[in-house]
Amino acid sequence: MAGGKGDKPANANKSNAAANPSKGRKKETGLGLTNTKDGNFGEWYSEVVTNGEMIEYYNISGCYILRPWAMSIWEIMQVSITIYIHAEIKKMKIKTCYFPLFVSNNVLQKEKDHIQGFAPEVAWVTRSGDSELEIPIAIRPTSETVMYPYFSKWIRGHRDLPLKLNQWCNVVRWEFSNPTPFIRSREFLWQEGHTAFATKEEADTEVVEILELYRRLYEEYLAVPVVKGKKSEMEKFAGGLYTTSVEAFIPHSGRGVQGATSHCLGQNFAKMFEIKFEDEKGEKAMVWQNSWAYSTRTIGVMVMVHGDDKGLVLPPKVAGVQVIVIHLPYSDADVDALVNASLETVKALCDVGIRAEADLRENYKPGWKYAHWEMKGVPLRIEIGPRDIAKNQVCVARRDNGKKIDIPMDDLVDKVKGLLDDVQQNMFEVAKQKRDACVQVIKTWDEFIVALAQKKLILAPWCDEEEVEKDVKTKTKGETGAAKTLCSPFEQPELPKGTLCFASGKPAKKWTYWGRSY
Amino acid sequence: MAGGKGDKPANANKSNAAANPSKGRKKETGLGLTNTKDGNFGEWYSEVVTNGEMIEYYNISGCYILRPWAMSIWEIMQVSITIYIHAEIKKMKIKTCYFPLFVSNNVLQKEKDHIQGFAPEVAWVTRSGDSELEIPIAIRPTSETVMYPYFSKWIRGHRDLPLKLNQWCNVVRWEFSNPTPFIRSREFLWQEGHTAFATKEEADTEVVEILELYRRLYEEYLAVPVVKGKKSEMEKFAGGLYTTSVEAFIPHSGRGVQGATSHCLGQNFAKMFEIKFEDEKGEKAMVWQNSWAYSTRTIGVMVMVHGDDKGLVLPPKVAGVQVIVIHLPYSDADVDALVNASLETVKALCDVGIRAEADLRENYKPGWKYAHWEMKGVPLRIEIGPRDIAKNQVCVARRDNGKKIDIPMDDLVDKVKGLLDDVQQNMFEVAKQKRDACVQVIKTWDEFIVALAQKKLILAPWCDEEEVEKDVKTKTKGETGAAKTLCSPFEQPELPKGTLCFASGKPAKKWTYWGRSY
Repeated sequence: MAGGKGDKPANANKSNAAANPSKGRKKETGLGLTNTKDGNFGEWYSEVVTNGEMIEYYNISGCYILRPWAMSIWEIMQVSITIYIHAEIKKMKIKTCYFPLFVSNNVLQKEKDHIQGFAPEVAWVTRSGDSELEIPIAIRPTSETVMYPYFSKWIRGHRDLPLKLNQWCNVVRWEFSNPTPFIRSREFLWQEGHTAFATKEEADTEVVEILELYRRLYEEYLAVPVVKGKKSEMEKFAGGLYTTSVEAFIPHSGRGVQGATSHCLGQNFAKMFEIKFEDEKGEKAMVWQNSWAYSTRTIGVMVMVHGDDKGLVLPPKVAGVQVIVIHLPYSDADVDALVNASLETVKALCDVGIRAEADLRENYKPGWKYAHWEMKGVPLRIEIGPRDIAKNQVCVARRDNGKKIDIPMDDLVDKVKGLLDDVQQNMFEVAKQKRDACVQVIKTWDEFIVALAQKKLILAPWCDEEEVEKDVKTKTKGETGAAKTLCSPFEQPELPKGTLCFASGKPAKKWTYWGRSY
Repeated sequence: MAGGKGDKPANANKSNAAANPSKGRKKETGLGLTNTKDGNFGEWYSEVVTNGEMIEYYNISGCYILRPWAMSIWEIMQVSITIYIHAEIKKMKIKTCYFPLFVSNNVLQKEKDHIQGFAPEVAWVTRSGDSELEIPIAIRPTSETVMYPYFSKWIRGHRDLPLKLNQWCNVVRWEFSNPTPFIRSREFLWQEGHTAFATKEEADTEVVEILELYRRLYEEYLAVPVVKGKKSEMEKFAGGLYTTSVEAFIPHSGRGVQGATSHCLGQNFAKMFEIKFEDEKGEKAMVWQNSWAYSTRTIGVMVMVHGDDKGLVLPPKVAGVQVIVIHLPYSDADVDALVNASLETVKALCDVGIRAEADLRENYKPGWKYAHWEMKGVPLRIEIGPRDIAKNQVCVARRDNGKKIDIPMDDLVDKVKGLLDDVQQNMFEVAKQKRDACVQVIKTWDEFIVALAQKKLILAPWCDEEEVEKDVKTKTKGETGAAKTLCSPFEQPELPKGTLCFASGKPAKKWTYWGRSY
């Protein structure tokens, strides 16, 4: 995972450039990034999340402080999935709950594959105050084993089904591979949904419904194109039946990234935790379960995909500030008039629900403010100078493509709304073009190796055998990490009869995306 | 804290009566409580929070599962303080953040009084997977020491002040005294605000502004009367300068309960963490800090104050379901018409923002449904029978006082709105009368002992000396816990010259509330 960054970014011990412009490195504004996205992606990422005031590195490795700029996005995403996308979620009747952070060892051990998958990353509490605990207690890495003993208690008859719970919480996975803000941290925030059904059909249906919500979250809110697909047996959730995911791709690092997952757990956990119900005929049956989650990793993916050499670029739908208004107090200007015009502009936009703010600070020049809000990725900047007041207009600059346009004040609200929609749409299309340009269809091992070196998102015919995937991993192991399957897309291109697996030469069963990943 | 309940409630191993009515204990409905609020308050409380489906006891002592019925209230309270009460909060410009769950030992140790206060309750992570950590890491009991090293980094000049952050998170305090759901649990959810100012005056002002928000949260949302006041030196926040709190009182247990706290930390933490800024004259100065929090304890206080022998009683403003609609399908009734009328009623109410639901389940009788929703505390029940349809009306029953009233369908929305307001108001007034009836003004030690035995909320003239408070604690120590100061109310009755302290006989300095507490 060398595309990411370790715990000590280049600027970790320097003062924050955004907060302390006078100590910055770019002459004109004192702001800006020292790394470029093309030049050194890993360093650029560390710098953009810290200088954009999303993250502060913390004094415990793999832990990060989520600053208000990041939390405003996370809050919007919570509301998105619980309110807007939520015509659906509400129809799904998913209820909010909160289970404890701690899980006892004997419960954690119940599902063997599950604990095998998570055991190396589990953090253990062994002491309180000066006293050793009688039995060490685990911190949840995920909550299947926390919740399901109680599912067993709550579910008795078919009328108790489906049971659909969701919680927003923190989880801990004490990983030792390279930590990267948002993408791989030892503690992260997520939602985890846990549902139980009477039939496999209902569970299967929900798996894809939730996955579609996640696709919309990425594509419609974060403007990040994703592929919906199924994970290989090797890559599926530990203890589950099958895993589906939305997979994003980071062109600059040439890595796939699992965006969110929707698992069908089958009856594995139900057996271990004895989650049974009496069906309509009065017979005992085992429930079918799903679990599904998306985390603050979403924010990291968005930053990696859209950010540029000026800093963050936020899609309007999740930006805490969608429009920043900056007045231009030239030497002979009527400053009061400019301030009033700025405040009126903000008010007009806020009145229709647009998240607008004015930066009226007197101790910074407009050029510094431009750079500051560009660093923070605000989608639109409105500039108001004396000439604009005279013409009863404002000038709007887009963060995504830098284009400027004058807008008559009379059309302000409609035009700004339109521009925000345009920016959102354009960001998605640009990202999709870049992603699509990285997709390489290959059919042979030689082509695979070339494409991998070129950081491609590789689509290859595969025999779907675990031994072959292991073999590919072994053969591609290197400094930048081994290649693995990302997913087998739901939308399969035609697979002509007689097509062979690129790696084994056996008959291919499906098209599968391969690559390095986070 | 014997008014609460240990970890093994009477019904812990029995099936949940509400979920499994056929196994319940009351003949008519199979629902109901086995304990009464007057008869055995502790057992009643355990039963009402479990049978009301708020809490499930968890297999780790002192940890509880917050079920959807409790989480819906917590979510409404989050929204309350961040949106409704929030004309103010927004004016206050408090931003949301998220700091890590973990804190390193050396940082935790920095403020000596602070760590002394929390050390016995800190949970330590010492192991990940099979590896011992090089240095044990603490789980936050509160986040002063987690955050303030970064305040020191972010605050440079006077323009960086005030800094106002808030986070919603879980904290862990591994207490060994009797755990009680919501009131005293080893993990709980809360918001914690942390602010830094240039001057003490600003900090002082915020302390009381936030305390007023907390008063409104209790009185206007939870319908629980509270006293605003200042904590004694012994009871103040460990490491702080002074602590203010809203104090509630539980008449049935005769115990005070600290509802929420707003601390002025002074410059103690600023000194230890070197949080300095350059003031307008270019001189270095130390910031003044506050921290303030309210937790899921609020829900427990609400349950204790309002619950009755039929179960929970929820104030309309925080009830996840404000109105439950139940149709009465008598043998010769037109069931379709009843179902339609129920759905129309729900729709009409939901359309104006009232949280209404219909219980259309065919496998339960109306009587069972009445008992079920009474147990869950829903403020209003609407009954629709054939006679109501004929008369184009519905019958509404209030949970708070049991009164029933017929409402013409044409007035439905207005009348229901009015009733919800009435219920909210009435619940507060009844609770206030009961609380006020418990207040006992005393002047001598003998009166104090009598009042304490009578479970009173004792208001007494006090010399404000720590030794005297310790002495009172020692003298009143017993099975049910020692008496201590709750707070010195901001609204002080007149203290005639020459009034003596009830405990020491020295000149009294102030009126202070005393009692046993949670």
